[in-house]
Amino acid sequence: MTDDDKSAPDSPAGPTTSLLVAPRDFVCMQPFIFESGQTLPGFTLRYETYGALNAARDNSIIVCHALSGDHHCAGRHAPGDRKPGWWDNLIGPGKAVDTNRFFVVCANVLGGCRGSSGPSSINPATGRSFGISFPFVTIRDMVRAQKILCEHLGLSSVYAVLGGSMGGMQALQWAIEYPSFVRKIIPMACTARESAQAIAFNEVGRQAIMQDPDWHGGGYLAGAGPRVGLAVARMMAHITYLSDTSMDRKFGRRKKETAAADAYNFDVQFEVESYLRHQGQAFINRFDANSYLYITRALDHFDLAEAYGSLEESFRSVEAETLVVGFTSDWLFPPDQNRTIVHALLRAGKRASYAELTTDLGHDSFLLESEDLYDLVHGFLECAPVAAPAPAPATDSRP
Amino acid sequence: MTDDDKSAPDSPAGPTTSLLVAPRDFVCMQPFIFESGQTLPGFTLRYETYGALNAARDNSIIVCHALSGDHHCAGRHAPGDRKPGWWDNLIGPGKAVDTNRFFVVCANVLGGCRGSSGPSSINPATGRSFGISFPFVTIRDMVRAQKILCEHLGLSSVYAVLGGSMGGMQALQWAIEYPSFVRKIIPMACTARESAQAIAFNEVGRQAIMQDPDWHGGGYLAGAGPRVGLAVARMMAHITYLSDTSMDRKFGRRKKETAAADAYNFDVQFEVESYLRHQGQAFINRFDANSYLYITRALDHFDLAEAYGSLEESFRSVEAETLVVGFTSDWLFPPDQNRTIVHALLRAGKRASYAELTTDLGHDSFLLESEDLYDLVHGFLECAPVAAPAPAPATDSRP
Repeated sequence: MTDDDKSAPDSPAGPTTSLLVAPRDFVCMQPFIFESGQTLPGFTLRYETYGALNAARDNSIIVCHALSGDHHCAGRHAPGDRKPGWWDNLIGPGKAVDTNRFFVVCANVLGGCRGSSGPSSINPATGRSFGISFPFVTIRDMVRAQKILCEHLGLSSVYAVLGGSMGGMQALQWAIEYPSFVRKIIPMACTARESAQAIAFNEVGRQAIMQDPDWHGGGYLAGAGPRVGLAVARMMAHITYLSDTSMDRKFGRRKKETAAADAYNFDVQFEVESYLRHQGQAFINRFDANSYLYITRALDHFDLAEAYGSLEESFRSVEAETLVVGFTSDWLFPPDQNRTIVHALLRAGKRASYAELTTDLGHDSFLLESEDLYDLVHGFLECAPVAAPAPAPATDSRP
Repeated sequence: MTDDDKSAPDSPAGPTTSLLVAPRDFVCMQPFIFESGQTLPGFTLRYETYGALNAARDNSIIVCHALSGDHHCAGRHAPGDRKPGWWDNLIGPGKAVDTNRFFVVCANVLGGCRGSSGPSSINPATGRSFGISFPFVTIRDMVRAQKILCEHLGLSSVYAVLGGSMGGMQALQWAIEYPSFVRKIIPMACTARESAQAIAFNEVGRQAIMQDPDWHGGGYLAGAGPRVGLAVARMMAHITYLSDTSMDRKFGRRKKETAAADAYNFDVQFEVESYLRHQGQAFINRFDANSYLYITRALDHFDLAEAYGSLEESFRSVEAETLVVGFTSDWLFPPDQNRTIVHALLRAGKRASYAELTTDLGHDSFLLESEDLYDLVHGFLECAPVAAPAPAPATDSRP
């Protein structure tokens, strides 16, 4: 396995298909104590890296994924792969996050189901999946596990942490938890605390899963499980990632051709229904229902102000420069929730700026093609940090 | 049964508790042809009336309910009833819709499950519930059935038709379908066509119901049925009736006291979760899952522009004066969808006005206490129609 086998000759040419990557597993044999007080004797993080670590070991960029994302954020696993990683438009040679200059690391979160330890992992004590006996996971736990991976990789500091949605929460937590280790963070489409509405949507998804008779109290067998509940949860959540405008543009009220014959039934009639059903079905083939419960709970519990006394107080230790990016049509974590983060950072005397991009693509805007977003990210990463964090050599820290 | 037994001596005094009412059943023995072409040999509408019909039989106001509403829109069935009808704040003696002056009629919609014919009704041919063999219902079907009730009640014309959400769609359809019969309409928190996002939310609810193993293809027995799916559908829909702001004010991130002991599980932790679960549970005790499918499909298919060629064209026949009321925080049928209705009416040369109320209570704003709303409705009803519809005597038409 190698992750720097760039531009393989048989890879389809083009600006978005230049990296061939392979995931790796980091198996930590040290006990991990979760925020809940529960412990595991060790854990695995599946991750990918892109680009090369420099001699000073300080040119790394940590990419944090959102609820349903994973470690495969750029490149392709094989030249014939239909789709590249989920942020391939942003990350790669010569792109906004330039893998010719940066060593990019992306890990599946602790509690996830794409190779990292989570409820679907086998509990060595029983030989069966942990299910909901897996320790409770918080955003801070996810970040602490990533930090251990960074130590394993020998990073002396991290140049930047990037992420959208839950990835943005992790970026904030990185800057709070390891202030002298992180130079810059770019949280996007993010919030410093889940709102009641966001908790409510998560709870409906969890109820759809947990009330599904195939959930079996979380003890379903691998390959089985609450497929209906998980699909319903995903369909609903997917609506919250888009916007009214983008859905109207993409689907409007267009009907499926098959619907024309008989408009009066409960089969798929509208294209938007067909799209959502497909989203639900695709999701159950790649995601574990218990992981969905764990990660949505981690989101719900994320509240920096509560954890540290106030939002300003939570940022007291931060040394990283921050760029927060909000999107006008994001109604899950709307612009004002993003702006609030920057206001609190500024009040705490930190270097922070806020950019709001006018899009009509909703919460998922951070994932979509946008020259404005690329320019913002590229510009912020290009700019040398005003003051290097104490433990890192200032001269070598510039990419 | 009587519906004018007002202010019974043993009724609790107070401005919102002055009407004692009882529902009635109108059994139509004439065949009803649905828009789909399907027929029923007859149908029942359960309805309530408030106030008295005048000699000219032209002081009636039709109130149309929303998806989960029913015929009980005002007063109480018994003095000890904990809750009055769902629009009791607006309708009653001396209220904005003054039952001392108007004869108010409200019927459970065709396709409903609160006494009117719908999928849970017994099919005489089989002795069992229709289930999804009940004819497909449209908003226009609902209105046509109500018109037959009005004829049964001997109304010579209708002074006004009022409704919010799906009730507003019916009000629009009333004015289009029976132009010379309707003098005024007040659609609120309404749309002339369901957006892709609204269809999407409805579809997730339907999938939750239809994928529930207890749905049995719609053939579940009375008292049984897809309770889990229906509860999930309701929980999700309920979020769309509120607003981010109102949920934050009402619940915020407040935790249940029981949650303090162990924050790390999937039981109810936040008050908003407890509230939603309660909403879901309460709903399955009063609503039929198949009716939910039928009525959401009726909503999805509502598109005046498609049905008549254009929105302006759909209003060509309208004679009623229209007041549309939108609410700033309504994100299910947002202000611009309400405004669009009035713009099209004006382009078609009709008498129409638009009022937008600044609220932070979301789609359900039309149901909530608001002096501004009461003033709007009262003022619009007070004002004599500019020109009386042809068949009614102009002098007697003033309330």
